[in-house]
Amino acid sequence: MSSVSIIGLGGMGRAIAARAIEGGHAVELIGRDAAKAKDLAAALGGGATVGTFGAVPVGDIVVLAVPYASAVPVVAQYGDALAGKFIIDISNTFNADATGLVIPDGTSGAQEIAKAVPASAHVVKAFNTVFGHVLAQGRALDVFFAGDDARAKADVSAFIESLGLRPLDVGGLEMARWLEGVGPLLMGLARNGAGTFDVALRVDLPG
Amino acid sequence: MSSVSIIGLGGMGRAIAARAIEGGHAVELIGRDAAKAKDLAAALGGGATVGTFGAVPVGDIVVLAVPYASAVPVVAQYGDALAGKFIIDISNTFNADATGLVIPDGTSGAQEIAKAVPASAHVVKAFNTVFGHVLAQGRALDVFFAGDDARAKADVSAFIESLGLRPLDVGGLEMARWLEGVGPLLMGLARNGAGTFDVALRVDLPG
Repeated sequence: MSSVSIIGLGGMGRAIAARAIEGGHAVELIGRDAAKAKDLAAALGGGATVGTFGAVPVGDIVVLAVPYASAVPVVAQYGDALAGKFIIDISNTFNADATGLVIPDGTSGAQEIAKAVPASAHVVKAFNTVFGHVLAQGRALDVFFAGDDARAKADVSAFIESLGLRPLDVGGLEMARWLEGVGPLLMGLARNGAGTFDVALRVDLPG
Repeated sequence: MSSVSIIGLGGMGRAIAARAIEGGHAVELIGRDAAKAKDLAAALGGGATVGTFGAVPVGDIVVLAVPYASAVPVVAQYGDALAGKFIIDISNTFNADATGLVIPDGTSGAQEIAKAVPASAHVVKAFNTVFGHVLAQGRALDVFFAGDDARAKADVSAFIESLGLRPLDVGGLEMARWLEGVGPLLMGLARNGAGTFDVALRVDLPG
């Protein structure tokens, strides 16, 4: 269908890449470690290609699938190479014991990333409320997203849907903080009430 | 079964009272407006009684079902009358446009309430992630809760279950901030992706 670039070769990047390939997308894998990207492309199959870290990504949608600690430095390094891209920030920003966020009040990881990308690029927060290993299980899942640019949100929503997932718009990028707050909640739920990390949040709609 | 006291005669208080009566509990309704409490008791039936605002509540579990702006003043006014009680804080603390919280970072409405109750009382955050009118629809719902006292949590969990709802422990009371952050998320979801306020969060467990 369309092409998507994924920066980051960890569990979430891999899970999204696998579902994107299944969904018929041309997937470009990008990491600092090109050999690792090549291995992952081979393992995933589906014609996945390997991009050069820091160069203009092929996809109109770029999934930034690196830990939050690396996210702002990575987009800063990319600089104008991200011009015009729709960037999906999937990062979780919770602290070591998953009781709070490392981001101060009044902002979010997504908003900090948005400050660091070119003005023509648009950040959409998505996927951080889904555990990577759950995504890899192939279950039907709800994916919450937030962003300020209508066209970016429409494209990201269609992308999420193409992965067999239900996109759920929660509003503008200022909502990213509360999506990031779901991170500690899911961890707490997994450790306490659910007793398993195989949990997923679903929205129950009437009728 | 057991008796529960509900302070607050609004939509959430009424919805919890109705389900508690259905669940076989003796329900005490308490409001500043005794006439309104009496009318609500008559409307609900099921032997609901009316308590005196500020006096020791009958129930071991006290549902504090007042808007957050009133919550701390109300428990301060109750003072030692709440000694030994398990207090369920159901408040939402989001701001006027439901994009943020009125509570500063590092605390929550529930924690502020906990500071204001007697040391022998224990606060459990619960129900704030459920819309009152959805609760009143009688649907099976998930109810997240958080608290620091194991016995209070066990009793509140059993109470939630007795209402035909699934209790889901997310951890200590410091998690209340992130439960309160679900408030803006649900509002954003209702206004955007869901297009209806009849939404509810569910947890999908495997198997």
